[in-house]
Amino acid sequence: MELDKISGGVTASQGFKAAGAAAGIKYTGRDDMAMIVSDVPCTAAGVFTSNVVQAAPVRWDRNIVRNEKTNRSVRAVVVNAGIANACTGEDGMNACRETAEETGRVLGIGSDQVILGSTGVIGAYLPMDRVCAGVQLLKDALADTEAASDRASRAIMTTDTVNKEIAVQLTLDGKTCHIGAISKGVGMIEPNMCTMLCFVTTDAAVSPAMLDKALRYAVADSYNMISVDGDMSTNDTLVILANGLAGNEEIAEENEDYVRFAETLRAMLIEQARKHAADGEGATALFEVRVEHADTREHARILAKSVVNSPLTKAAVYGHDANGGRILCALGYAGVTFDPDLVDLTIKSAAGEVPLYRAGAKLDYDEEFATRVLSEKEVCALCDMHMGAEEAVAWGCDLSYDYVKINADYRS
Amino acid sequence: MELDKISGGVTASQGFKAAGAAAGIKYTGRDDMAMIVSDVPCTAAGVFTSNVVQAAPVRWDRNIVRNEKTNRSVRAVVVNAGIANACTGEDGMNACRETAEETGRVLGIGSDQVILGSTGVIGAYLPMDRVCAGVQLLKDALADTEAASDRASRAIMTTDTVNKEIAVQLTLDGKTCHIGAISKGVGMIEPNMCTMLCFVTTDAAVSPAMLDKALRYAVADSYNMISVDGDMSTNDTLVILANGLAGNEEIAEENEDYVRFAETLRAMLIEQARKHAADGEGATALFEVRVEHADTREHARILAKSVVNSPLTKAAVYGHDANGGRILCALGYAGVTFDPDLVDLTIKSAAGEVPLYRAGAKLDYDEEFATRVLSEKEVCALCDMHMGAEEAVAWGCDLSYDYVKINADYRS
Repeated sequence: MELDKISGGVTASQGFKAAGAAAGIKYTGRDDMAMIVSDVPCTAAGVFTSNVVQAAPVRWDRNIVRNEKTNRSVRAVVVNAGIANACTGEDGMNACRETAEETGRVLGIGSDQVILGSTGVIGAYLPMDRVCAGVQLLKDALADTEAASDRASRAIMTTDTVNKEIAVQLTLDGKTCHIGAISKGVGMIEPNMCTMLCFVTTDAAVSPAMLDKALRYAVADSYNMISVDGDMSTNDTLVILANGLAGNEEIAEENEDYVRFAETLRAMLIEQARKHAADGEGATALFEVRVEHADTREHARILAKSVVNSPLTKAAVYGHDANGGRILCALGYAGVTFDPDLVDLTIKSAAGEVPLYRAGAKLDYDEEFATRVLSEKEVCALCDMHMGAEEAVAWGCDLSYDYVKINADYRS
Repeated sequence: MELDKISGGVTASQGFKAAGAAAGIKYTGRDDMAMIVSDVPCTAAGVFTSNVVQAAPVRWDRNIVRNEKTNRSVRAVVVNAGIANACTGEDGMNACRETAEETGRVLGIGSDQVILGSTGVIGAYLPMDRVCAGVQLLKDALADTEAASDRASRAIMTTDTVNKEIAVQLTLDGKTCHIGAISKGVGMIEPNMCTMLCFVTTDAAVSPAMLDKALRYAVADSYNMISVDGDMSTNDTLVILANGLAGNEEIAEENEDYVRFAETLRAMLIEQARKHAADGEGATALFEVRVEHADTREHARILAKSVVNSPLTKAAVYGHDANGGRILCALGYAGVTFDPDLVDLTIKSAAGEVPLYRAGAKLDYDEEFATRVLSEKEVCALCDMHMGAEEAVAWGCDLSYDYVKINADYRS
């Protein structure tokens, strides 16, 4: 769908302010804490990492958004970069409580109205004196401007090279509503969420149940379909806050407004998720895998993700090598049954398209042209399974020397 | 167990000859075809890739070893490197038939007595004139010497940098028996077999059912526990031929001789499999992951493989970075339930050992010493789950610049 994009990031939604600040958590000379605050209580919904090992802030947030007593009264989000506060045991949970209490004190709200996020090194402990000082700095810097959202967005980056913000407007119940988001995360990103943080604001009025439903619908085809390296983080968090200041009648059932809201959120998060894949650690190209005519939607998703995760395929994309065999091979080990003698495979980009395989057998094609097609910044592998009517799209990136370089000594 | 190692590779077993030859399939200036021949018919067993997309030679071999009419009469193995004969449809199966028929004609045996293996580029077609000429060259070069096994072993290498041969002797029924093997494969290697070819000869007499049972037992803890990149090939093949010339009473039930044979085969294949992991594409270190006190053996295997496959962990090993958080994280997304607050994690090598985590929380340790421990050629991560009594070991390697380099343009 066509999105009606506007500027402003998370502050595009009425009644939201944002801030970034340099708290010196781990980095020096850059912002490393961010805050988002709503003038009024928000309905909140969230999706989190499915890793068995969950960072303390994930456990903190889950308690708030899954609890009917607290998920209609969220006021603030506080995030730090540099240290993930994961694998930190009791101390980690105490750090969350302290951060939320300090935020509550500074903003005059309750600690259970504060959503937290952390990203960075696993197994390191947060320097609480700096975190608390950072909360005060953030409060002092709060503003409802595009610059403020931008600063918050940049403050949460770790190995990201591109700022990731988006905002759109839509009409619900005759009222102009807004949805804005900031997000980060270009490594340890794998289907089902990874060191990916995404915070979404909206001034639309949506009930907790419908907000949760819309978020899950939107995530299934967006953040759950991107992968940088198949590693799944302990910290992934995607939280949406809806403060209702747009004045529309609250969406409380699956009516037309719900559909418009959910579809807009889905399209917006797909666009945002693609930015993560394209900015994958060391990536030189966005790699899109489109699986068509699978027998079920779930199978289509599994097949697309298997290809997008294959290190050999990703290395071939980096080398601009039209190695269709590796793609067929990755489909083959996905764990889904299909008839390899039916599969058609085509590569596409802005430079054109090249059919590589038809009915499972290799075609004759111009290698030089195929290399040209694979030399674009966005390349697509189209896999037609000839099994049914379902499709799915996954996004990833190529595997380059720089991925290894970035990750061989991330901590130092 | 202690192996009684001898020289000779596949020709260490009585009545087996081997050969390598330069057939010009794809490479020039090196051997690229290999042959193993037994003087008398052999009992055969095999395990093959579980990829849905299976190369033509895998389908050919499966038909022979799974058929009671043919799995007691195998006489020869013919292998080529350079072209995998995978994703080649009807033409691929015809190429197998032609190769086996030519081998049968040259050796005076039936085409259904010939096991085939191919490794190399997927989606390319075999030049049948060269393959057939190669079969004649191989026949002329057959010898029962160590040099002949060595030449066969080197002929099937692709990106391997180290020749992989092994031979042992053991006593069964008072007779000295031998088992020898050659194998290749250092990329696209993932649990459940990958572009990994391994051919094992033995002069022990073993029934088809017991040979199959011993092979599966041995593979579960050896070749199925190694991984270079998580990609699983279309061509993996491990075939064992037993010609009975040692004169022992045929092992036809799970008696003491069976146990001795199976345990020897297991220990031998573990040693062989470790060579594949250590020689992983671009690898600078063998990475061993040992999971202890898991609740089930299967869970121990899944957890160990998840860590050994984690790109972030592999990159950290390359950087000699004691990033225990990434290891805990990889345990967490393995798909097995456990209590993260119980896990102990230690890294070990010839330089010493360093406990990184205890009961899920990070310990204080000397980073410099940890780096020294991780700078050895073989490093081990020991994960104690504190859940039960089962354990498993997986082998892989680090992720280096060279892995990317090797695979970015493998075909050219």
